[in-house]
Amino acid sequence: MNTDKKLWANGKLIPCDSVILNPRDRGFTLGDGIFETIRVREGEIIRIAQHLARLRKGAETIGLALLWTDAEIQQAIRETLVANQLKDAYLRLTLSRGVPTQRGLLPDEKNAKPSLIIQAESFTGYPEGLYQRGMRAMTSSIRRNEHSPLANIKSLNYLDNILARREAAKEGADEAVLLNTQGNIACASVTNIFFVKGKTLLTPPLSEGALPGTVREYLITKISPQHGFDIVERAIAPAELVVMDEAFLTNALMGIMPLISVDGKTFGRGRPGMITLALKKSRASEGL
Amino acid sequence: MNTDKKLWANGKLIPCDSVILNPRDRGFTLGDGIFETIRVREGEIIRIAQHLARLRKGAETIGLALLWTDAEIQQAIRETLVANQLKDAYLRLTLSRGVPTQRGLLPDEKNAKPSLIIQAESFTGYPEGLYQRGMRAMTSSIRRNEHSPLANIKSLNYLDNILARREAAKEGADEAVLLNTQGNIACASVTNIFFVKGKTLLTPPLSEGALPGTVREYLITKISPQHGFDIVERAIAPAELVVMDEAFLTNALMGIMPLISVDGKTFGRGRPGMITLALKKSRASEGL
Repeated sequence: MNTDKKLWANGKLIPCDSVILNPRDRGFTLGDGIFETIRVREGEIIRIAQHLARLRKGAETIGLALLWTDAEIQQAIRETLVANQLKDAYLRLTLSRGVPTQRGLLPDEKNAKPSLIIQAESFTGYPEGLYQRGMRAMTSSIRRNEHSPLANIKSLNYLDNILARREAAKEGADEAVLLNTQGNIACASVTNIFFVKGKTLLTPPLSEGALPGTVREYLITKISPQHGFDIVERAIAPAELVVMDEAFLTNALMGIMPLISVDGKTFGRGRPGMITLALKKSRASEGL
Repeated sequence: MNTDKKLWANGKLIPCDSVILNPRDRGFTLGDGIFETIRVREGEIIRIAQHLARLRKGAETIGLALLWTDAEIQQAIRETLVANQLKDAYLRLTLSRGVPTQRGLLPDEKNAKPSLIIQAESFTGYPEGLYQRGMRAMTSSIRRNEHSPLANIKSLNYLDNILARREAAKEGADEAVLLNTQGNIACASVTNIFFVKGKTLLTPPLSEGALPGTVREYLITKISPQHGFDIVERAIAPAELVVMDEAFLTNALMGIMPLISVDGKTFGRGRPGMITLALKKSRASEGL
């Protein structure tokens, strides 16, 4: 980003490198907020309705008022894209509790002034070579807490994921798989995880600590039925990985990313799977 | 705080209400940072060495460089106190990863520019009446993740604690007790928890998800031995609470706070316990 780029903050478009946050903002001091990461392709804000629904649900979970309607947020996003002359972009929406009116952990919900920030940056997708090779993951030593409401919202508390990702990078892996506290597979550091076994797609349910990803939802409700796949949401133990034919990862920026190994053990022949590629190339996946 | 008050940010004293943070700061976007809360009484920065040691350990855990020496940080704290004419204060030190050099979760550790902010606010202690009455707690539905390194550092990821505290407040309780994912007692939302049984003090070990609180450490290493109490760090199940004679909570701002009930069930006669009060009033506790 540079200074002629703009971001949207609480109704105003301002230069991107502006310092605009009070260091007492609870988003900064306590991670008291939520966010969304959204892809924009050829001017289309991909699955915006789903992202805004999740943002709204997250706000409700943590008792944070969202002062803007969906239409107002969509308008703000469009203004931000226009101001930055972007048609292919990734968007980041951050909703924070704002500057507190009192000391301590307890939010003052009556007098809170939540803050909404929209940032846009040029993005044309992940390198094609990475999809052709597929990602390699390792299992993190950090467990995802399925006993917290944070597991199912996109909160600003991402340090567990950062540490897991950092651990994976040190081992040369592309992504970190997180088990939940019972030792089942929950998700990866920035992605949902799917496995293919025969004609069945398997993925951990939200109760296992999976984030309700927008691509995850799209796969379950749209793509899989069109392809005639059964989707089964159930607890998946790491020991089951050896019987899976294929695996892939999903998020709003990557779409469907082949996963070729976990902890050095490959799925199939260690190449992106046929069904993974078919799902990725299908007409239903065009909108990803 | 008002505009003639100052905060210290990366070497400069600036007006408190300044907006100084870039919204891309990873402390804000991802909770990528740590903090300390410190009490200052009559000009004495209480247990500063322990706080700085914990800050340094937290920085190491998350792979964040602390660019200032302990002496420099202490000097910065003193400057901040002088600038605000404060002798009785609470301090907040926040160390964040700063503005990233690259997109994504993985921190760029070589080129990171971490940010240190020191805030001071007037504070003369909690109301005496609260110590005389003692706090009432409820058990949160949110579990503390003892399988994360974050359980043992003071990270910016405080949303679980905020939600637990909010849940407790809705029930009229003063504090929220958090169980860990195995169902044992870990801590409370902003405090460590201790129980008294006969001449023994019991508290959960760090491995159960307890934060290494500075008052907790002081109690274990200094106060208890002076009083001839045994301190036992062990897993404590909620079912054991009925056999405890007394309970109390500790943190850097409260010192030792009597806990008179959990979920409506009182310890002893529902009044601050004798041993709790003796510990609080002891000469060794003067420094709390």
